[in-house]
Amino acid sequence: MANHPVSPLAPAGLPALPAIAGLRFAAGCTGMRYKGRDDLMVAALDAGSTIAAVTTRNTMCSAPVEWCRAQARHGRARAIVVNAGNANVFTGRDGARAVERTARRTAALLGCAPGEVFVSSTGVIGMKLPVEKIEATLPALASALDAGGAERALRAIMTTDTFPKAAVRKARIGRTEVTIMGFCKGSGMIAPDMATMLGYVFTDARLPSSVLRALLRDGADASFNCMTVDGDTSTSDTVLLAATGKATHAAVRSAADPVLRDFRARLKDLLVELAQLVAKDGEGAQKFVTIRVSGGASDDSARKVALAIANSPLVKTAIAAGDANWGRVVMAIGKSGQPADRDRTSVRIGGVTIARRGDLVPGYDEAPVARHMAGRDILVEAEIGVGKGRATVWTCDLTHGYVDINGSYRS
Amino acid sequence: MANHPVSPLAPAGLPALPAIAGLRFAAGCTGMRYKGRDDLMVAALDAGSTIAAVTTRNTMCSAPVEWCRAQARHGRARAIVVNAGNANVFTGRDGARAVERTARRTAALLGCAPGEVFVSSTGVIGMKLPVEKIEATLPALASALDAGGAERALRAIMTTDTFPKAAVRKARIGRTEVTIMGFCKGSGMIAPDMATMLGYVFTDARLPSSVLRALLRDGADASFNCMTVDGDTSTSDTVLLAATGKATHAAVRSAADPVLRDFRARLKDLLVELAQLVAKDGEGAQKFVTIRVSGGASDDSARKVALAIANSPLVKTAIAAGDANWGRVVMAIGKSGQPADRDRTSVRIGGVTIARRGDLVPGYDEAPVARHMAGRDILVEAEIGVGKGRATVWTCDLTHGYVDINGSYRS
Repeated sequence: MANHPVSPLAPAGLPALPAIAGLRFAAGCTGMRYKGRDDLMVAALDAGSTIAAVTTRNTMCSAPVEWCRAQARHGRARAIVVNAGNANVFTGRDGARAVERTARRTAALLGCAPGEVFVSSTGVIGMKLPVEKIEATLPALASALDAGGAERALRAIMTTDTFPKAAVRKARIGRTEVTIMGFCKGSGMIAPDMATMLGYVFTDARLPSSVLRALLRDGADASFNCMTVDGDTSTSDTVLLAATGKATHAAVRSAADPVLRDFRARLKDLLVELAQLVAKDGEGAQKFVTIRVSGGASDDSARKVALAIANSPLVKTAIAAGDANWGRVVMAIGKSGQPADRDRTSVRIGGVTIARRGDLVPGYDEAPVARHMAGRDILVEAEIGVGKGRATVWTCDLTHGYVDINGSYRS
Repeated sequence: MANHPVSPLAPAGLPALPAIAGLRFAAGCTGMRYKGRDDLMVAALDAGSTIAAVTTRNTMCSAPVEWCRAQARHGRARAIVVNAGNANVFTGRDGARAVERTARRTAALLGCAPGEVFVSSTGVIGMKLPVEKIEATLPALASALDAGGAERALRAIMTTDTFPKAAVRKARIGRTEVTIMGFCKGSGMIAPDMATMLGYVFTDARLPSSVLRALLRDGADASFNCMTVDGDTSTSDTVLLAATGKATHAAVRSAADPVLRDFRARLKDLLVELAQLVAKDGEGAQKFVTIRVSGGASDDSARKVALAIANSPLVKTAIAAGDANWGRVVMAIGKSGQPADRDRTSVRIGGVTIARRGDLVPGYDEAPVARHMAGRDILVEAEIGVGKGRATVWTCDLTHGYVDINGSYRS
């Protein structure tokens, strides 16, 4: 992995990561690919913890993704093990065996069932995972588990990321305050669903896995599934939401229970923050771009139009150059395949209406738009004139940095 | 328009462009955008000529595209007028009026009906077309029409193209030899259907417009609709096939007439050559890439998979770097949304099988693949294991040149 400069869109720093009752972390170095840095993390959850997963829809999905999907059905978790540098994708039966061995070794060390161990891998596709290096490293991690180890753990799973990504929220369930803490990695091969995005979110709330599942699906739809770097959906994307159940609030049986209103909102907020951090670390990103589409045939249709704009190489290169080339936005709307009425379509950049109802606004002055385009935070809005569907999508620009990073990743 | 070096994938030169009975060309400079070069061409067709059109499916299509679609219904043509530098897209009623004025002025000069004049525009989107400059330039072109003027005409419609693109075929209809000559422009915003691709194909064959329409639709599906540079489908794509009817073969009433077998094959061949020339001039292209997919649920499904590979920024940047990163090919297959069976999927690069049935080939040696990747002509093949669908798609790599060109186009 080449070293790339930290994204100019990175936040000032990591938030302080609070300890969560029933949750400990450890990280270490297997040496399988990277030298002189951690590349393996374990999150250990106390007995009684519950879990939910959302995973990639890529049909070439990795062995760990298949494993997580299968284990998520029972909804119990005691550990999450993640390695960076090798994605264990397209590795045939050996790939599945490597996951099983990782889960078995971890289970033996922690005293749980292998099916309670969730496994993720990120990195190069198509290389055999040297699972023996993971097995050899796990014992040291099992004996170093620490409630304060989150930051070291989240740094261990970075690949082309230029900064670590975490977010924290407090939420109330009834009168009880609970904590939500999440981190993720990802900067390229990022698109719904989900991105080479690995995300792990933890809470001390006491929630059955069926409730976690509903909350996570809704939250992911509003966050990771509205974010794209390059339109290339990874084979490995996984987001897990785990709850240790140490909080003392009353039992919650349904995701529809109104007692979850605050928790649901804070969780969604946290997931959106994580998704935006990924877009801000998009490979080579120099600008963070928000695309808002209204007037779609449905919310889903509006989201597809917004993604067509967000994934257009011509739009992304224009933004990289600070060029208010709104004509390319029009092109991208039109190529989306979604219903849109040219003669009722309007485009705004940086809050300035440039074109309205299929035509340039009379006396349009590019100067304020050019100033907006020179900044780091770009807002593109389009009204497409067929219905009431709305969507917001986040992405970044397409720069020389992207070409550099992805032309050298394996070297 | 910045000047960019000629694509290293350009052919040695233009073929000699034969005169076609009943067809004359002229080109000139309106000065609307480019200085010191032609930017307007007229092709004049003798009375009795027939025409067919295929046009973009982009819903934000240009005023000229709407005009061509409407006029193509009657299938008679006397002139084609094309300007470069301004695409006359998203220009409201003024855009439609500019097309009408261009057609009327041309019709008055050539003595035909405005509806027999086909108009195309290529260039920047969303700027009013200064049609008065076209009107002022047309008289000189009308008096300079010349059967040998094809080369100057085709050079006049180039935008970011780094080399001119033309192809010629001879074909037999019965015992009569006819000529097919075509040229096109396009190098970015290129994807089915169709690309900022303007293409004009002429023949002296005597064919009714209904026959031309069927031949052109089939030919375009096998050529321009299998070619992509950046997945960005233009608002202006138009391919016209015009026949002067000067050849002396017997009348042909149906595209299914077996007498057209040779003509159909040569036409398709010519269209494929033109499409490949566009991919070879893809903005910033350093490598020409052929993607072949087999085992798809249908030919159409296989084509969608091939396009997902061809449009993947991660695949394209890896190819730019000469990196045999076949894992990204696997990822792109999986993200296509098309049926594919991971455990029956194989990938070949440069004729070397790298992965078979969901796993790396034992003892895979990257050396010959790396040699292939270092070349100019890259072949990627995938078998996806669900059916008998097949497709071939052409594209190019994604390089720093693409980012440069598209970050500076409007300047």
